[in-house]
Amino acid sequence: MPRFAMVVEYNGEAYCGWQRQKSQSSVQETIENAIRKLEGDLPHITAAGRTDTGVHALGQVIHFDLKKDWSPETLKAAINANLRPSRIAVLKASEVDKDFHARFSAVERTYLYRVIVRSSPLVFENGLAWHIYKDLDLAGMTKGASYLMGKHDFTTFRSAHCQALSPVKTMNNIQIDSSLSPSGKEYIFILEAPSFLHKQVRSIVGTLVKVGMKNLGPRDVKTILEARNRQECGPLAPPEGLYLKKVTYDPDPFSGIETSK
Amino acid sequence: MPRFAMVVEYNGEAYCGWQRQKSQSSVQETIENAIRKLEGDLPHITAAGRTDTGVHALGQVIHFDLKKDWSPETLKAAINANLRPSRIAVLKASEVDKDFHARFSAVERTYLYRVIVRSSPLVFENGLAWHIYKDLDLAGMTKGASYLMGKHDFTTFRSAHCQALSPVKTMNNIQIDSSLSPSGKEYIFILEAPSFLHKQVRSIVGTLVKVGMKNLGPRDVKTILEARNRQECGPLAPPEGLYLKKVTYDPDPFSGIETSK
Repeated sequence: MPRFAMVVEYNGEAYCGWQRQKSQSSVQETIENAIRKLEGDLPHITAAGRTDTGVHALGQVIHFDLKKDWSPETLKAAINANLRPSRIAVLKASEVDKDFHARFSAVERTYLYRVIVRSSPLVFENGLAWHIYKDLDLAGMTKGASYLMGKHDFTTFRSAHCQALSPVKTMNNIQIDSSLSPSGKEYIFILEAPSFLHKQVRSIVGTLVKVGMKNLGPRDVKTILEARNRQECGPLAPPEGLYLKKVTYDPDPFSGIETSK
Repeated sequence: MPRFAMVVEYNGEAYCGWQRQKSQSSVQETIENAIRKLEGDLPHITAAGRTDTGVHALGQVIHFDLKKDWSPETLKAAINANLRPSRIAVLKASEVDKDFHARFSAVERTYLYRVIVRSSPLVFENGLAWHIYKDLDLAGMTKGASYLMGKHDFTTFRSAHCQALSPVKTMNNIQIDSSLSPSGKEYIFILEAPSFLHKQVRSIVGTLVKVGMKNLGPRDVKTILEARNRQECGPLAPPEGLYLKKVTYDPDPFSGIETSK
């Protein structure tokens, strides 16, 4: 039974998140159904990160085992055909070693969070970004983020439902960029870490935006982190701005595979 | 009765185009209904360009007369509130002179057309770009476009239903840019002219993409133009890639008004 890994993109607006649920349509179920049409059995697919309701992915990674020795390109095309008209697409496919595991082999995850500032309602980015009406203080948010870099106990920025064994995580990078488009100003938060706690990105972005609105000082982020108390956390940023951007493996199972080929 | 002008953005996926229709929802009707809630009467609104079904706008311009002397900012906020949850937003509002006319005062229109090349289905740009599977020849398309610059009889690139008095139009500029994103390669066509014939942009883009696919040579564009024969035109590019990007006036009625304020 060969094992396959895939890079998957999805628009989370239509789904109750990654994980299979009884009454709602999940990304996992939709992909499993598309794969089942190929070999009859329902495969079990594993994802690098279980995204919540409304959260998007630009580069989710999954793995699963099949009976037939598919060519990865044929498999990708067949699954994409079966996925229509969903809002999910397979971008890359590769046959991997039996010991490759989408979740446990990952060495780093990159999340992206989009905030758009404008007075008018969002049109093209509705459901795809957090809409904020007044501009933010970029320097303050960047200063606040600096206190979260490195290895810390992130209890403050962790959901009450988080199942991780330890609240200690290492933040490799938090970068905040801003750009101006004709339709508004956009802030993009990029967060990189080997792994994240449940709702950690949205907790951090919500707190940093509170700094951007000047309802918190940048140094308060340090105090809040050190409190190790969920009650101290800023408001949770909404799911629609969050994207699982990239999952990194060493070696890269998709090395040399181009998306647009 | 003061006259107001507005810059309007919309996602054309949900509408049968700009113009009011009996049985389907149009952009014009949706905006007129939002304005009617303010003063009771149904205003007549005029747009710079009547976009077709599925065509989007980043900078459509409209004008209409009201009874009350609204502050433009209040009017913009009230119309945006009444437009919810549509996929239409007012970006800028201004009070203008009685002789300002969204259509007849315009000195230039800019259209943008998006083509995305990738083998996987579109996820985030589904309905918002023309999806093509194989890469295009940019140099060939740019060379082909050069024959369309300036003043010509554009009969070949004109819909049979076009109501313009003359097929002679002046193309100020056609620019084609390409960019690479993690999810594919994008070509953006920018076309600028004082005014366009019905379906002229989609006819031109469809023909240039045929050059990009090497089903036509760049110089064939000149032959096709000079044939002044609709039958010679390449396939019509689909509506979902087309955006009315900007309408230019002299003087600019929106000068100094920022979108995100």
